[in-house]
Amino acid sequence: MSTGKVVLALDGMGGDQAPNVIVSGADIARERYPGASFLLFGDPARLKPLVDRHKGLAQALEIVPAEDVVSADDKPSFALRRRRQSSMWLAVDAAAQGRADTVVSAGNTGALLAISMVAMRMLEGAHRPALASFLPTSRGETVMLDLGANLECDADNLAEFAVMGSVFAQVLLGLSEPRVGLLNVGSEELKGHEELRQAAVWLRREGSPVSFQGFVEGNDIGAGKVDVVVTDGFTGNVALKAIEGTAKLYTQFVRDAFRTSTFAKVGYLFASGAWVKLRKRVDPRRYNGGVFLGLDGICVKSHGGTDALGFAYAIGVAVDLVRYEYRNKLVEGLAKLREVASAADAQVLQASGGAA
Amino acid sequence: MSTGKVVLALDGMGGDQAPNVIVSGADIARERYPGASFLLFGDPARLKPLVDRHKGLAQALEIVPAEDVVSADDKPSFALRRRRQSSMWLAVDAAAQGRADTVVSAGNTGALLAISMVAMRMLEGAHRPALASFLPTSRGETVMLDLGANLECDADNLAEFAVMGSVFAQVLLGLSEPRVGLLNVGSEELKGHEELRQAAVWLRREGSPVSFQGFVEGNDIGAGKVDVVVTDGFTGNVALKAIEGTAKLYTQFVRDAFRTSTFAKVGYLFASGAWVKLRKRVDPRRYNGGVFLGLDGICVKSHGGTDALGFAYAIGVAVDLVRYEYRNKLVEGLAKLREVASAADAQVLQASGGAA
Repeated sequence: MSTGKVVLALDGMGGDQAPNVIVSGADIARERYPGASFLLFGDPARLKPLVDRHKGLAQALEIVPAEDVVSADDKPSFALRRRRQSSMWLAVDAAAQGRADTVVSAGNTGALLAISMVAMRMLEGAHRPALASFLPTSRGETVMLDLGANLECDADNLAEFAVMGSVFAQVLLGLSEPRVGLLNVGSEELKGHEELRQAAVWLRREGSPVSFQGFVEGNDIGAGKVDVVVTDGFTGNVALKAIEGTAKLYTQFVRDAFRTSTFAKVGYLFASGAWVKLRKRVDPRRYNGGVFLGLDGICVKSHGGTDALGFAYAIGVAVDLVRYEYRNKLVEGLAKLREVASAADAQVLQASGGAA
Repeated sequence: MSTGKVVLALDGMGGDQAPNVIVSGADIARERYPGASFLLFGDPARLKPLVDRHKGLAQALEIVPAEDVVSADDKPSFALRRRRQSSMWLAVDAAAQGRADTVVSAGNTGALLAISMVAMRMLEGAHRPALASFLPTSRGETVMLDLGANLECDADNLAEFAVMGSVFAQVLLGLSEPRVGLLNVGSEELKGHEELRQAAVWLRREGSPVSFQGFVEGNDIGAGKVDVVVTDGFTGNVALKAIEGTAKLYTQFVRDAFRTSTFAKVGYLFASGAWVKLRKRVDPRRYNGGVFLGLDGICVKSHGGTDALGFAYAIGVAVDLVRYEYRNKLVEGLAKLREVASAADAQVLQASGGAA
């Protein structure tokens, strides 16, 4: 581990409440992570007054002018070609070229993915990037990926995602051997799509770089059965949003229930401390900071609607990934995967009709 | 609507707590649904003493001997071939042959699907069955399908599921024009799998048998944005279980929060009425009764672990489907779908690269 300096490129203009939240978030992160400094990309006329409001922030932060902005409605292909001078493009480029160690943006997710893939390229041994994030569970936290970078995934992609997620959990959760599961419709060997069964065969092999626990189901996510849940981007995106929607629904149900009678209202007041604890435990800001894993560079995506504290959490994810050498660990893990799942092996398996 | 007699075939031996829960559930349903009578399949030596415990139940119920039982571990193919004399097979057969109007089982889901498909066959115009059920939402209840009958679905399947779900919501929720959405990773026209985009083109056409609202996302399920959420069986199964897992997790979080201090415990006591209301609102028994839609017959799957009240709810679903003429409405809806989405049309669309 290195506790040294980390230079972060920040997309100053990305997100619903940019640039305010970006600057305030950087200020919180500066206090939390000594050694962190920032290259803040965007419109100096808007950024400088905000930076000056935070005493001492200017010493750890340099404003880098960017004329253009990627809008929330920009198609990825449009942002990629026509927004070369945007705060997002220039921030990603700084991380890709080594002027920064990592980039954090709260802007347009699709555009950020497209730009990062072109500017950073894939890491050796990785074929597709995956969007990973944390979810609260009954045992703590679980990493889930892919949350939407790839709608269709083959066995190779899924096996690589398992390695990426495992290394991510090692670095971010401090686990030495994260338990990894493949999301499926049943825990039996024979169920589910062919690509899932084939990925399972590889991950189970002697020498596999992950501690593979087999198939898990949707309800195992919240139960924290594994530390890393691996799935394709379509299923992962639907599951993540279904989970978020249910959390919101239950919060509303609980609130409604406490409004039904005077007794309940009194109970609510007595229990106000409990509510604060509950809100802290499920605070979405604590789970802010999705990461595009598998790129040759570290790109962290903050939620577009987060506040300064949430953005500071996303910066924290980026700092940890740099300091705990995520990149080297992932290269090592992917090389091990190649040993247990060679391309020839894949062809043999496919020709024989799959996971026998 | 017919308020007349309904004959229900019950799998007396299916489910974790069979036959007790089945018999007690039938007794509750008998009081709720006057005109309902039962053919109860299973071991008479075990069933008769249970039936005799409920005063008057024997008058509305006939025990039909079945020597064998489908176990929870039986593979569908095994149950299909080797359990012909089981309570499940004979109960399904009674509904398929017209000796009963519908069948309800709390047994092995895969076996029930396989047996129903063989015994009942598909309804005219339907190519694959879909498992549908209700979920609580902030606006009331939403129907979701397919929850796991088909892991891979083409555009045709999805469009048919939309019609099935719409008719199901009409009959069970009493809605004249249920709002139907296709589950996707974004609400934009261009996102998601090709089969989703093609199904959307058909459902949107003039003359479509459903009130199609376009694509919905995972978080729209709990928000109740539509009355019917249509998806493939893999995604639907994962989403349903993720929702159930999250509901369980939040219940635990709330409980934990109220145990943290004396104040909170006092608040909990004051609010006990609120908890009762909350529990009622999200009571899984109220949402018991998944239905295999698209079969030429009505087959209701109760949750295997439910209690007598939950089983009575499943019986209620079966009774409503018979009384409100689900079958005729579905045949009509599927015929309308064929007019807007002919096979030739599908080929043209595929050749031209899809949803233009």
